[in-house]
Amino acid sequence: MKTAAAIMSGLSLSTTPPCSSALSSSSAQTCLRFLSLSLPLHSSFNSTNIQMNRRNPFFLVRNSSSITAKPSSEMRNNRNGGSDQDQKLTALRELFRKPGINIDAYIIPSQDAHQSEFIAECYMRRAYISGFTGSAGTAIVTSHKAALWTDGRYFLQAEKQLSSSWILMRSGNWGVPSTTEWLNDVLAPGGRIGIDPFLFSSDAVNELKESVAKNNHELVYLYDVNLVDEVWKEARPMPPNKPIRVHELIYAGVDVSTKLSNLRSELTNHGSSAIVISMLDEVAWLLNLRGNDVPHSPVMYAYLIVETDSAKLFVDKSKVTPEVMDYLKKAGVELRAYDSILSEIESLAARGAHLWLDTSSVNAAISSTYATACEKYLEKLGSKSKGKNLSGAPTALCKSSPVSLAKAVKNHAELEGMRNSHLRDAAALAEFWSWLEEEMNKKVVLTEVEVADKLLEFRASQAGFVDTSFDTISGSGANGAIIHYRAEPDSCSVVDTEKLFLLDSGAQYLDGTTDITRTVHFGQPSDRQKECFTRVLQGHIALDQAVFPENTPGFVLDAFARSSLWKVGLDYRHGTGHGVGAALNVHEGPHSISFRFGNMTPLLKGMIVSNEPGYYEDHAFGIRIENLLFVKEIDTPNRFGGITYIGFEKLTFVPIQTKLVDLTLLSTSEIDWLNDYHSQVWEKVSPLVDGSAREWLWNNTRAVSEP
Amino acid sequence: MKTAAAIMSGLSLSTTPPCSSALSSSSAQTCLRFLSLSLPLHSSFNSTNIQMNRRNPFFLVRNSSSITAKPSSEMRNNRNGGSDQDQKLTALRELFRKPGINIDAYIIPSQDAHQSEFIAECYMRRAYISGFTGSAGTAIVTSHKAALWTDGRYFLQAEKQLSSSWILMRSGNWGVPSTTEWLNDVLAPGGRIGIDPFLFSSDAVNELKESVAKNNHELVYLYDVNLVDEVWKEARPMPPNKPIRVHELIYAGVDVSTKLSNLRSELTNHGSSAIVISMLDEVAWLLNLRGNDVPHSPVMYAYLIVETDSAKLFVDKSKVTPEVMDYLKKAGVELRAYDSILSEIESLAARGAHLWLDTSSVNAAISSTYATACEKYLEKLGSKSKGKNLSGAPTALCKSSPVSLAKAVKNHAELEGMRNSHLRDAAALAEFWSWLEEEMNKKVVLTEVEVADKLLEFRASQAGFVDTSFDTISGSGANGAIIHYRAEPDSCSVVDTEKLFLLDSGAQYLDGTTDITRTVHFGQPSDRQKECFTRVLQGHIALDQAVFPENTPGFVLDAFARSSLWKVGLDYRHGTGHGVGAALNVHEGPHSISFRFGNMTPLLKGMIVSNEPGYYEDHAFGIRIENLLFVKEIDTPNRFGGITYIGFEKLTFVPIQTKLVDLTLLSTSEIDWLNDYHSQVWEKVSPLVDGSAREWLWNNTRAVSEP
Repeated sequence: MKTAAAIMSGLSLSTTPPCSSALSSSSAQTCLRFLSLSLPLHSSFNSTNIQMNRRNPFFLVRNSSSITAKPSSEMRNNRNGGSDQDQKLTALRELFRKPGINIDAYIIPSQDAHQSEFIAECYMRRAYISGFTGSAGTAIVTSHKAALWTDGRYFLQAEKQLSSSWILMRSGNWGVPSTTEWLNDVLAPGGRIGIDPFLFSSDAVNELKESVAKNNHELVYLYDVNLVDEVWKEARPMPPNKPIRVHELIYAGVDVSTKLSNLRSELTNHGSSAIVISMLDEVAWLLNLRGNDVPHSPVMYAYLIVETDSAKLFVDKSKVTPEVMDYLKKAGVELRAYDSILSEIESLAARGAHLWLDTSSVNAAISSTYATACEKYLEKLGSKSKGKNLSGAPTALCKSSPVSLAKAVKNHAELEGMRNSHLRDAAALAEFWSWLEEEMNKKVVLTEVEVADKLLEFRASQAGFVDTSFDTISGSGANGAIIHYRAEPDSCSVVDTEKLFLLDSGAQYLDGTTDITRTVHFGQPSDRQKECFTRVLQGHIALDQAVFPENTPGFVLDAFARSSLWKVGLDYRHGTGHGVGAALNVHEGPHSISFRFGNMTPLLKGMIVSNEPGYYEDHAFGIRIENLLFVKEIDTPNRFGGITYIGFEKLTFVPIQTKLVDLTLLSTSEIDWLNDYHSQVWEKVSPLVDGSAREWLWNNTRAVSEP
Repeated sequence: MKTAAAIMSGLSLSTTPPCSSALSSSSAQTCLRFLSLSLPLHSSFNSTNIQMNRRNPFFLVRNSSSITAKPSSEMRNNRNGGSDQDQKLTALRELFRKPGINIDAYIIPSQDAHQSEFIAECYMRRAYISGFTGSAGTAIVTSHKAALWTDGRYFLQAEKQLSSSWILMRSGNWGVPSTTEWLNDVLAPGGRIGIDPFLFSSDAVNELKESVAKNNHELVYLYDVNLVDEVWKEARPMPPNKPIRVHELIYAGVDVSTKLSNLRSELTNHGSSAIVISMLDEVAWLLNLRGNDVPHSPVMYAYLIVETDSAKLFVDKSKVTPEVMDYLKKAGVELRAYDSILSEIESLAARGAHLWLDTSSVNAAISSTYATACEKYLEKLGSKSKGKNLSGAPTALCKSSPVSLAKAVKNHAELEGMRNSHLRDAAALAEFWSWLEEEMNKKVVLTEVEVADKLLEFRASQAGFVDTSFDTISGSGANGAIIHYRAEPDSCSVVDTEKLFLLDSGAQYLDGTTDITRTVHFGQPSDRQKECFTRVLQGHIALDQAVFPENTPGFVLDAFARSSLWKVGLDYRHGTGHGVGAALNVHEGPHSISFRFGNMTPLLKGMIVSNEPGYYEDHAFGIRIENLLFVKEIDTPNRFGGITYIGFEKLTFVPIQTKLVDLTLLSTSEIDWLNDYHSQVWEKVSPLVDGSAREWLWNNTRAVSEP
């Protein structure tokens, strides 16, 4: 059984996944479990502290204390691996002066070339060079200094992991400069700042370029060499090369030729002749392929270029089995080497292609190569035919990828797969909770990690299981209040029967992706815990039951989930819902339900979204109740405005612990909701379990009555 | 007793007030009664069809039919006043070729020079020249054509009133060009388009200029002459010259010198040395003065320039009584002639003043004059001292007026005045409803206008009554579904005891401004009417009871007011709440509660906002329940995030007709809300009424019980 932990063990990285939320971005996602620890409304927080990208932006925690950052050297001197880290820095700096490089600083972000949320080990360059293994961070090395920016989730970890040669920049703390402010400060004007243009989105590079230009610095694109890889040398892990598999049509619902044909219509409608797809889940979805290159997400490293009359997949051919080769051929998709992408981009421009570029995700290497090639085309044309019509010249259409929205709106087969996999997942969870309660009753001592591992066992025995869909968050007591908590075998807590236990987990199955959070108490919860849990539940119910006009963006619904907490002065610092892929990434856009008001993407029929309000009491407990929902048309008795009204249907069917509910706070209709949900859970899941799990399910789906 | 009707009778204009809502504008307001008939979410509607300004924008109705506009000449030939209107057009066109004018087209908007919602008769130039007297519209006259743009509220009226020389442009209908699209179409490239720069906000002119530049047209500012006034000649009414009065300190709460001093601190903090205040309510609020120049709003035509060491009021001195003269002198405010504003602006620039300009409200005459004078300053400086430091040169700070927010956040005295005036207003309404019910029981036939007039009588007998705060909306049956309905004596309906009756009205008192809507049935409402009324009431209650974190913008709360309607596929096409002035304009910004997501102004402690969800069934009935609320801190048991939680307290205390409530739809807490409200109404208002009104109040504030 391959788990994320197994994959990562080589480097023993802390792979707490990064956040997928973007402030004021139309492609914003709300990946709250992982990262939408976030900012108060309308904060004047400087979001440029750390580079943000489309799929893997992170929300920095604004710490309540306002302490000016101190260099980490002042904070902690006895750090690990000092000399090793220093040797790496020395080796890196030696490269600065090499001919053809000649830079004064080098920026090393966390990203891979595809803005992935989970990345392969060989691309974890920032972790390698700095020693800091948290998911979010940016390292900058100059000839004399080295600094690492990360957010409040990782301050302690970074202090432990960075050598004294590194300055820790506590992003979000008062007085801490952004990366570019710092560069403008430490470099003499006119400095040359090197980047690997594959690791920055086109939008991010433009922002970066503008910021450093204030001090006349130049951004130097090093296309041919990643300097960290040069230092890493043989020790660098090989790029992943696990075989690609076909995602069967019974799960995909729509065949590749239809998807390509729809995409080509989009291209034609927008006057484009080609598009580069660089998000890994978009490539996988469009070609009905699944890969095995990164933990948790069933994707493979690849680019896809679709033209009106051809399609080319840029991928390491060693991953392509004869079966997949044949399949692609039938679909009219040619194979190209992964690293030949830029030469194809040049060739596209030379052929006058009008290229659709989603600059929020496509990396700067691609967009810059295209721009340069277009200029060349024009120069050539200009010298040949002065004053002639240039309408045939290649131009870029900068626009969100149409695949993102097409992928988010699930078809019937995808919804069926999601429904079915959620029922098997629910069966695994019933078995798990039944087992755990019994162990707790027997006073067996179990750690947070042991419990998470056991959950994985139950899931792995379900048909079609592939992987976890993210690192399980298993938090007892105060650990539950750490939204991005990841239990580690050597440091985690025991699951305490006298405390709340928060468990957020999910799985990848062949037919679907799950994501569920339940919070339970094995003993007697306090009145405070019950009140908080009940208010979170009321928010969950309010969102679940919402009906709203078509074309409503998700943020309009966010307040429904918070209202009951707000009434007593409580709230939570993350969004309420993120999109989920069908047997794909557990976090996807372009929609979300969040208090970040920039994402105007409407919730459309067929989209899947999580419903996960929470409440976190620092150093005490955390509560979150998460189901996945799909967006569907509601057959309302009226249709004011001649439009469709939209609502949700549940995918997740796992009991909510009624022991934690203060029934006196619930309205009749809220009690009805709870009883109705549990009756559905019993009806749908009981056929899939037996023995003690079935008994547990029966006991935990009994109706409650008004007090 | 002076009423709006009396003021307007000279021109017998239909003064349905214009709408005060702006799409995606941070200064947007939601003046839903009057004008937020509005668009579906995310409509691609072209908002430039008619010029929009800050305080008097209108939302055009998107008609459900998609008919390409036909010239009005094809629609209706037998129109009134044809030859009179044609003579005016001829006279206007003759001016086009005069030396110093030389234009190809002239745009005549509805506005005065201050972007007022209610304007004086002498400024109703668009109504004069076109014959169309609706509140919203833009006229454009070229050498050969004349066109008038208005929205769906006014299509019928415009068809009746325009002569056949005019083309009616039905804004919002499919295929109807915007004003600038039309100009670009009908004028040969390089045309000269004349405007009176006083009648356009600086922002509006910039937008206009950009649009017409596409066809190389030039915008020609005619500072010295309004061409319509030249045609109007002696028949043009005199500008209003009613005396100004001092708004007493017991109502204003803060004296002028403190307000000026606060404003000057703002100026200094922003590096400005002067500000032009041009919104009439801002001038009135800042100087604690009230005027009598327009109906419904107690303001006077004036500009105010505040510098760090002086303040100048530009006003017609005939309005300034010796008492006010003395008062202003003591406050350090100098008097200047109203029409000397531009020369003072020039002088400010010449003195190197850094001028704060709210370009969304300050007219283009002022901003352009300042810009030109600044250029002159620089030229002079440049010729004198080449290369020298120009930091002393005058520059503009383009930013929302700080007075707008200061005015919106009420002080203790203003809140007291609002509370007190609302109780007297409630007493008048109790007397009115008691009277009306009795008349209805006696089968007396009363028209919508007669009923509104009677209401005015009851209000006028209350202490401190000044005026209505807008034209009463008195709509029986289907008329209630016309959100901007205005009953006219010769065409209005009888108040039908078998139909719903919607009454939206308000008053200006010396100490406060009111605005209330109630919907009642004098007979037996249908189940349908009861369900709709109950769902509107549920929305009203949900918003009234909302608690939310400080710094929450109003649009976050809008969905609370719609949720119960949405559940059955119903909705309303207007915002939910607008700001209200304290003894000032009944519609004010900068905050609002609306589904228009652009207004990020948070709801701040001390703001006043209306709570007025509704439902309108075309050709059948209209329902709206409106109270005014003020924003206050809530003493929540927790303060998550260390912040304050905010909620509302009611100002309006008038019974809600329980006959219309379907109690089976209400939750226990909603029933509690209704009973608690009525018990407060009785407690607060019963001491102010006696006889049958007191009896009516008693009967209409009895508790209901759960079914």
